[in-house]
Amino acid sequence: MQGMGVSFSARAEGMRSSEIRELLKNGVMPGVISFAGGFPSPEYFPAGKVGEIVADLMRNNPAACLQYGETEGLAPLRSYLAEKMAREGIPAGEENILLTNGSQQALDLIGKVFIDPGDVVLVEQPGYVGGIGAFANYEACLEGIPLDGQGLRADLLGQRLAEMAAKGVRPKLLYLVPNFQNPSGTTMGLERRVEILQLAQEHDFRIVEDDPYGELYCQDAPPPSIKSLERRAGAEGRVIYLGSFSKVLIPGLRVGWMAADARIVERASLAKQPADLCSSMLGQWIVLEVCRRGLLEPHIESLRKVYRQKRDQMLDALGQWGPEDASWTRPTGGFFVWVTLAGDVDTKEMLPYALENKVTYVSGGGFHVDGTGKNTMRLSYSQPGLAEISEGIRRLAEVIAKFHFFDRAGRISA
Amino acid sequence: MQGMGVSFSARAEGMRSSEIRELLKNGVMPGVISFAGGFPSPEYFPAGKVGEIVADLMRNNPAACLQYGETEGLAPLRSYLAEKMAREGIPAGEENILLTNGSQQALDLIGKVFIDPGDVVLVEQPGYVGGIGAFANYEACLEGIPLDGQGLRADLLGQRLAEMAAKGVRPKLLYLVPNFQNPSGTTMGLERRVEILQLAQEHDFRIVEDDPYGELYCQDAPPPSIKSLERRAGAEGRVIYLGSFSKVLIPGLRVGWMAADARIVERASLAKQPADLCSSMLGQWIVLEVCRRGLLEPHIESLRKVYRQKRDQMLDALGQWGPEDASWTRPTGGFFVWVTLAGDVDTKEMLPYALENKVTYVSGGGFHVDGTGKNTMRLSYSQPGLAEISEGIRRLAEVIAKFHFFDRAGRISA
Repeated sequence: MQGMGVSFSARAEGMRSSEIRELLKNGVMPGVISFAGGFPSPEYFPAGKVGEIVADLMRNNPAACLQYGETEGLAPLRSYLAEKMAREGIPAGEENILLTNGSQQALDLIGKVFIDPGDVVLVEQPGYVGGIGAFANYEACLEGIPLDGQGLRADLLGQRLAEMAAKGVRPKLLYLVPNFQNPSGTTMGLERRVEILQLAQEHDFRIVEDDPYGELYCQDAPPPSIKSLERRAGAEGRVIYLGSFSKVLIPGLRVGWMAADARIVERASLAKQPADLCSSMLGQWIVLEVCRRGLLEPHIESLRKVYRQKRDQMLDALGQWGPEDASWTRPTGGFFVWVTLAGDVDTKEMLPYALENKVTYVSGGGFHVDGTGKNTMRLSYSQPGLAEISEGIRRLAEVIAKFHFFDRAGRISA
Repeated sequence: MQGMGVSFSARAEGMRSSEIRELLKNGVMPGVISFAGGFPSPEYFPAGKVGEIVADLMRNNPAACLQYGETEGLAPLRSYLAEKMAREGIPAGEENILLTNGSQQALDLIGKVFIDPGDVVLVEQPGYVGGIGAFANYEACLEGIPLDGQGLRADLLGQRLAEMAAKGVRPKLLYLVPNFQNPSGTTMGLERRVEILQLAQEHDFRIVEDDPYGELYCQDAPPPSIKSLERRAGAEGRVIYLGSFSKVLIPGLRVGWMAADARIVERASLAKQPADLCSSMLGQWIVLEVCRRGLLEPHIESLRKVYRQKRDQMLDALGQWGPEDASWTRPTGGFFVWVTLAGDVDTKEMLPYALENKVTYVSGGGFHVDGTGKNTMRLSYSQPGLAEISEGIRRLAEVIAKFHFFDRAGRISA
């Protein structure tokens, strides 16, 4: 099938595969304990319920589930989500909701309708690679703003915005995962949320608030969404909120949503028309039925317990075996612990040694747009079982200790 | 939720809603016979089989159906499609296949990886609005090449290419629906297919061959795909072939595929990663099971009979009631008849009168990138029943006769 050379577009020439995607292949190697993939734990998917629901749908309403549907998404699901948003302090009608193929498609559509080549998009550093990739594909100029234990450093953001303003540069978007962030596991405090909204208002940019993990808290719910604080901060319409059923229900159905100003929803829907006409109708109907039958809330409640146990197990194991000169975050929900090793350890170079020792993780460099973060790594506790989590951390600590020793001795690093 | 003004990207400022999408709303008005939507007929969706298959999948393999999957698509489905392509004269391995959310997503990904703003993309005139829209969203410069009863006019294409070459312009892509084309219903002859391939080789552009209807022939299969003729025409690798399960099985699952040079598949897959991570896994598994259980071929065989009857009914009705000064195509498969009225009739202006008379269609202007085609319309026979088809054509003929009379008398048109 091959022929002459291929001349791709400028944006395509710059495309790179996500390191995570490449790494996920390691997850299936026999005997390897993987802290790499940020996938939900499949044994808790409500498969039986899905079987029943599809049987009912195919008996009662097959044409609607199997035909093409509206680009904006299934109307009763949009209206369910508008009500959910309103309950969570985000006033919304159907016109404010767009259904997407997971929230990942929303990121792509936002890139498409907002970004001209060279536009500045601010991202968290470390930040979600899928968000970084979506905006990079539209040739955005990405700048990372550092995090601390309270999420994005609003003070550093303010400084950077002032510097940019002095040069006449206005960022187009700020992309955030405020709850149990991917990859760091940190949650942004309430005060920060308001500060960041005020900066958005002052410097005239929009915030993309990506919230796939917010409902998967261990003990207490995270602070109110940034979107719900818009009015309080005098920054109405500044936030595009993204939700998803991937982490709290089923990822393989690809159902997420955007809640935003109706003009943004309308434009993103125009961009979605030629992108795929509509999302999977069967997937949307399954999700709607799960919600209508009152199955979602108890399901999420049970997931909270599952992931809390896993988090506890990982933090306990790190407490027991974690290297003395390493530090790590203590997430209060979600899937991720973020580990920072001694400054001279390169976690990407260490990865082959970890695999040899039958454990894997994602090295942190890929989450940094400025090429830093070589001594960091993301550990996901969502998929392995409790015993695996302990054993994996034990193995990892062993690898770090050995690698560090050899590395310092100059035997491994080039 | 509203706030300040919204500053969209340059590409978003140019986005327009497809006329078809807007029109589809009319299809659900009570009593209106719709020839507008090009949707498959929902009463033939194999709903019972889908229910059984999902029940089996949820018993035997739920995690794989509900978890995230590979961006490239479900491996056994890719390999099934590679074998199918090979049987149809397109040598392919798994690395040549990318699964997409219907073939519409493939069009979007092709736009993303090939088109820089201002690149020339040649399209059929009239041509599929979803293809035109996908390429327009990447700011392509679109040029229409006219059709006749044998499909795209290769002679006019050759002339236009020579003119462009004289100015140093090379088109990036030529987009075609060679079988039972949307909107015209025409099928490209074998000789034309080879000629067009030779032109692609000579002028160094790629062909996007979109083939959602090819298997829905009335009597005889259409000529071999353009992609399968590459080698014979000395134009290896020139064609990106797009297939879809939407018309031959179920559209609401959103499963289509691209078959192309492995380097193009790789790049399109890189573009798909941040666009949606992966397509619906449940949808892909359902399609795979339909294929594995040998249900697809007999299903398509039965659809051929259904749509042949509908086509016959529409052509008979047009023969009986069609205006003398109108002409129409006689498709040998697919969903569409293309009608050309007397030159001074504007079918868009006529549409409200048609709706008053409880019949609707798609006016032809939107399928033309140069603003012509005002006196044309697309009639789809895929959804209405046989009696409705006759009655709808009778109503339409009445509308045309009246509108034409009044229009000529200057009473309606402004």
